[in-house]
Amino acid sequence: MTELMSRRAALVGAAAASLLPLASGTTQAAAPLTGRQAPGWYRYKVGSFEVTVVTDGINRFKMANDHVTNRPLADVGAAQVAAYYDAAMMTTPYNPIVVNTGARLVLIDTGGGEATFLRSKGAAGQLNTNLAAAGIDRNTIDAVIISHYHGDHINGLLDAKSGLAFPNAEILVPAAEHKFFMDDGEMSRAPAGRMQTVFKNARRVMNADVLKRIKTYDPGKEIVPGITSVDTNGHSWGHNSHIVASGKDKVFVQGDVTHVPHLFARNPGWHAFYDQDGPKAEATRRRIYDMLVADRTMVQGFHYPFPGLAYVEKAGNGYREIALPWSPTI
Amino acid sequence: MTELMSRRAALVGAAAASLLPLASGTTQAAAPLTGRQAPGWYRYKVGSFEVTVVTDGINRFKMANDHVTNRPLADVGAAQVAAYYDAAMMTTPYNPIVVNTGARLVLIDTGGGEATFLRSKGAAGQLNTNLAAAGIDRNTIDAVIISHYHGDHINGLLDAKSGLAFPNAEILVPAAEHKFFMDDGEMSRAPAGRMQTVFKNARRVMNADVLKRIKTYDPGKEIVPGITSVDTNGHSWGHNSHIVASGKDKVFVQGDVTHVPHLFARNPGWHAFYDQDGPKAEATRRRIYDMLVADRTMVQGFHYPFPGLAYVEKAGNGYREIALPWSPTI
Repeated sequence: MTELMSRRAALVGAAAASLLPLASGTTQAAAPLTGRQAPGWYRYKVGSFEVTVVTDGINRFKMANDHVTNRPLADVGAAQVAAYYDAAMMTTPYNPIVVNTGARLVLIDTGGGEATFLRSKGAAGQLNTNLAAAGIDRNTIDAVIISHYHGDHINGLLDAKSGLAFPNAEILVPAAEHKFFMDDGEMSRAPAGRMQTVFKNARRVMNADVLKRIKTYDPGKEIVPGITSVDTNGHSWGHNSHIVASGKDKVFVQGDVTHVPHLFARNPGWHAFYDQDGPKAEATRRRIYDMLVADRTMVQGFHYPFPGLAYVEKAGNGYREIALPWSPTI
Repeated sequence: MTELMSRRAALVGAAAASLLPLASGTTQAAAPLTGRQAPGWYRYKVGSFEVTVVTDGINRFKMANDHVTNRPLADVGAAQVAAYYDAAMMTTPYNPIVVNTGARLVLIDTGGGEATFLRSKGAAGQLNTNLAAAGIDRNTIDAVIISHYHGDHINGLLDAKSGLAFPNAEILVPAAEHKFFMDDGEMSRAPAGRMQTVFKNARRVMNADVLKRIKTYDPGKEIVPGITSVDTNGHSWGHNSHIVASGKDKVFVQGDVTHVPHLFARNPGWHAFYDQDGPKAEATRRRIYDMLVADRTMVQGFHYPFPGLAYVEKAGNGYREIALPWSPTI
């Protein structure tokens, strides 16, 4: 360290001279450390469509004792360590995608919104920055498809001032999810604590401006040409996934069929505290993942590590994701 | 498809009107497909150092019958399919890194050089483009460390006009590798075909300008403060890997201890046609990977999928890499 420091000090003095070409073996003035990460977007084709994964970033938080409701925290910590994560810290990526069908520009889920940027010290709330880096003007988004009403999927509908983040977009939401979270009876019967928080947040986001733009959809429908909804409820009342298909290609955009794969694909029987109906979420997870394995269908995982495009296969008592290799061209 | 095409045609006509905000439910003019991928760089810290992976891209080619010299091609094809690659097409990523120690800016290996860009239709030969995207001026590179003298590691020392691609850099090369490939006796005794091609290419790259900037290094030395060479010969005569260490952190920059991991980490006993000494390369591979597994040391893989930073663990008859999750901040 001392040697490095004295080198650096010497080099600061030599900065002016270093603008000239140096003789072989002479050290350049040190390039400053940048502290800057690459922009978080990645693009691939599905048939004639362009899919752009635009990460909202990650969130890190200390796990609650009941993070997995049907397993002791020690088991969860062991799974974390086995996957090279800190035992006690949850690391959750958020990966919205933009589908350009050639006719429409469609965002699927939004991430936690600009308001989370400062709270996370810039690690999350990156969607709009990364959209711009990817050359996508948010004013040109034609439609936002929502998988379900949890905050990390809907909060980004609003900008930092609670205005519309995508002012020219239709907002396509699952009919069952919308009905459930807007129903005063359901809200009054929901347990205190987390579930009340989810209700309150959903109603905060679904403000008058958003409600004006909402269209509800049912499972099993082509809700935008080339994008079909799939009933995958359990994680939430009306949770939907989406199949993006063009020509012979398709990708299964799973939403939260699994949360982070190193816990919930590897252990499909584990129920997260944010699964509204644990057993139903598990049944959905097993049904969908068995299908993805059998058909060798690519999955795009909202909570997979960026860019989140993978094949899945059976492994141990569950499933393992095999990320597609980064392609330098599309 | 017909519906999409007619929609697109209709939208072209509506382009002017779409500049105004549209009523809810109306489709924007379609954003054009971009055809553009994200820039190929990724940054992480090792102690106080910044490591920037700057991909040169990928190469795809039909595998020769003896791609793996001690296994039938059918076995290789099966391993390709098991890893979700085409059976017959080799896909090889190239991932040079730049280490900013705070005092020196050091490139480790170069990729195949600008000349490969057109030949690969832009898929490879991307190093200089991606360096610029990462904010790294190639004129500020202080040192280039070379692991071995195969073309995909040294050709990028030269720009498209055979000038110095890094005109102010020392070029640090393994002493044994340099001696071997510059030795006329060794060249005359080398078999015809591929090995003669490697000799000729090494001598083409090691032109007068490059030779003036060369300093040779031995294994087991701190060749730049914080970067130590490790003898990993077998793949080539004087192949070296490098440990980048700062504070309590380190990463093992493996060069070609394994080529693509889905073939050669998974099957450490397989010998590639580009292993100069197959059995010695295998022994090195097993020794190094057993060490990486035992110590839970991160590996940076030149031929791993970008960004190529992973842990490795035992799996089946060999090893499996577990990529570190992309971090949106460094």
